[in-house]
Amino acid sequence: MGDDRDARLALNCVVEAGDANLAGLLGHYTPDEVWQRVRGGRGDPAWVRRAGEVSLARVEWRAARHALRFVVPGDAEWPVGLEVLGSCEPVQGMTGVPVGLWVAGAHSLGPLVEDSVALVGSRASTAYGDRVASEWAAELAGGGTTVVSGGAYGIDAAAHRGALAEDGPTIAVLANGLDEVYPRSHVSLLGRVREVGLLVSEYPPGEHPTRPRFLARNRLIAALSGATVIVEAAARSGARNTATWANACGRPVGAVPGPVSSAQSFGTHRLIRDGEATLVGSVDQVRGLAGPLGGSYDERPPQLRLLDGLAPAERAVYEALPSRGGRSAGQLAVKAGLAVPVALAALGALESVGMVVQRADGCWRLGPVENRPVLSAQQDDQ
Amino acid sequence: MGDDRDARLALNCVVEAGDANLAGLLGHYTPDEVWQRVRGGRGDPAWVRRAGEVSLARVEWRAARHALRFVVPGDAEWPVGLEVLGSCEPVQGMTGVPVGLWVAGAHSLGPLVEDSVALVGSRASTAYGDRVASEWAAELAGGGTTVVSGGAYGIDAAAHRGALAEDGPTIAVLANGLDEVYPRSHVSLLGRVREVGLLVSEYPPGEHPTRPRFLARNRLIAALSGATVIVEAAARSGARNTATWANACGRPVGAVPGPVSSAQSFGTHRLIRDGEATLVGSVDQVRGLAGPLGGSYDERPPQLRLLDGLAPAERAVYEALPSRGGRSAGQLAVKAGLAVPVALAALGALESVGMVVQRADGCWRLGPVENRPVLSAQQDDQ
Repeated sequence: MGDDRDARLALNCVVEAGDANLAGLLGHYTPDEVWQRVRGGRGDPAWVRRAGEVSLARVEWRAARHALRFVVPGDAEWPVGLEVLGSCEPVQGMTGVPVGLWVAGAHSLGPLVEDSVALVGSRASTAYGDRVASEWAAELAGGGTTVVSGGAYGIDAAAHRGALAEDGPTIAVLANGLDEVYPRSHVSLLGRVREVGLLVSEYPPGEHPTRPRFLARNRLIAALSGATVIVEAAARSGARNTATWANACGRPVGAVPGPVSSAQSFGTHRLIRDGEATLVGSVDQVRGLAGPLGGSYDERPPQLRLLDGLAPAERAVYEALPSRGGRSAGQLAVKAGLAVPVALAALGALESVGMVVQRADGCWRLGPVENRPVLSAQQDDQ
Repeated sequence: MGDDRDARLALNCVVEAGDANLAGLLGHYTPDEVWQRVRGGRGDPAWVRRAGEVSLARVEWRAARHALRFVVPGDAEWPVGLEVLGSCEPVQGMTGVPVGLWVAGAHSLGPLVEDSVALVGSRASTAYGDRVASEWAAELAGGGTTVVSGGAYGIDAAAHRGALAEDGPTIAVLANGLDEVYPRSHVSLLGRVREVGLLVSEYPPGEHPTRPRFLARNRLIAALSGATVIVEAAARSGARNTATWANACGRPVGAVPGPVSSAQSFGTHRLIRDGEATLVGSVDQVRGLAGPLGGSYDERPPQLRLLDGLAPAERAVYEALPSRGGRSAGQLAVKAGLAVPVALAALGALESVGMVVQRADGCWRLGPVENRPVLSAQQDDQ
């Protein structure tokens, strides 16, 4: 494993993140085999040249000095969710699971992202967007969900600040080596993120951010998070790129609506119209996105109600509802074998917890997905 | 036809709008046959009782005094779009094409709704909602599209006012006889609507609005309009009922997003989340909803671009785009048989008119539906 880790660190220093050629080679060779070949002067000339320039000793010295660790697959804290990058559709030619990640902070990365949501958006955010990002981040992080973002100006900073205000978990995924801070004015903010949560980067110490690196970083945000929410995005925004990655990874994507007059909501409205994101209007709806894919919930029991927690009449009425469309209270009473007043009382109880909704036409339908019960194992036969 | 019209007027006076029993009878009997039976004291007791109470002469006198006309199927101005109510799914038990409509104003109803959009929403609207309703109504009506609404406080009033500000066509569909004004404070507003556009109601003069009548009125708004847009709606709002009717009629429904903190946008966000409405963020997007179903466009040539208005390279690139998903500029150049710089220039030209869109990942895809060309007849063979 020592060889594997050293080889991964070396490849991390000489090959750009998301390189499809490296991903292809690692399907056939071990990292050590690839690295020995590059070190021997064979393979991609850019890698060979860079291998001659990079001082791995210097990278390790810098990492030690800044208390950075290099986490690789097989490590206890390696986030298994990243493996999706090995099988998802390439975006802008990028593909492959990172050979390793640089991490700074006292937490363990894997467990920290098991229940996580990315909140990202425009650097040039509005007061509305900043407020939504910080309030939702505070509510999510206050409830134990890790808020992942990119450490940038605007929405990202508001999201980190919201989580920090609750001393809640937050992770900044950066496009530069963690020995430096970009943007400079976020020294204090990112210092706090490191204390309370983690800083993560695919780039070794000494590396600077570039436009392609911001794009490669966006795929990490998407893959590390149970769901990705775009809070604000102009017509063309890096946040849309993160949404594209999340969709490519099969991770749910939410987008926050805003005033139609706000250019910073054009991008989120477009994502919703194009079916690339689900409209999310509340933290509960964000949780509804992330819930089923948020990984294990060992520490926090899911908020989902089980059908067997319901009274018999409530259960009968609930099960009488069609999966799509609505039914009148009278129809439901007949189907559930109940008197109408009993059915109405049950509907009232179910409505109060959001499991059913009365439509404008008076008919009843199933509540939003996030309020639907998970069937317990004993109910599989029913 | 005199008998038919008289019978329809009589039935209009004695049977509540949307009565499913009347709709059923009119599938088998003529209006005159049904009316003779009711007048003879047979049939639904409520109708028979009401037939004994109503003075048709008095209704006709009131109508003449207020310059109201009773429009029936077969009249030149009968809006053919209403026939959909005879075949669509009942909502709240209501069904059937109205036996006739009361109309006030100098315009002809049918042609006025051929290109029409309903803008409706909460009575307790916000300044944001009022602004969107009045600005969009002004833009739509200024462009010749009739703005249909319900004459109520809030969004409805803002929509009518926006259209009136442009001296553009607008129709108020009311839940009461047109000899009276509800709400009272809208005397001047609805007077202007009558001058510039039309007042429409299913209720004879002398009838007052009730809750069921507001709901029945909503189905007229939906059926008379090429598309229905909900500008603002609280969690429970009559505007959602209009959306339900529009969906039942197969008419496109749009909903305007707003700040997630606004209770008046909860209803529109929910419609979008539930797939009952398409997010609309601009008048162009509203036109995109209504366009294909807006009826004939004899007076206003469609704004849609024809493919043969494009330069050859633009057309070749456009036709190389897949109907779903995107392609890189390089792929498109190969498929279109063009050099990459030529393809890029063509993509730029197509993008400037909204016919193609560059995704966040750099690939190109078809622009929104409203920007897609209609093939001219000569192109059917290509």
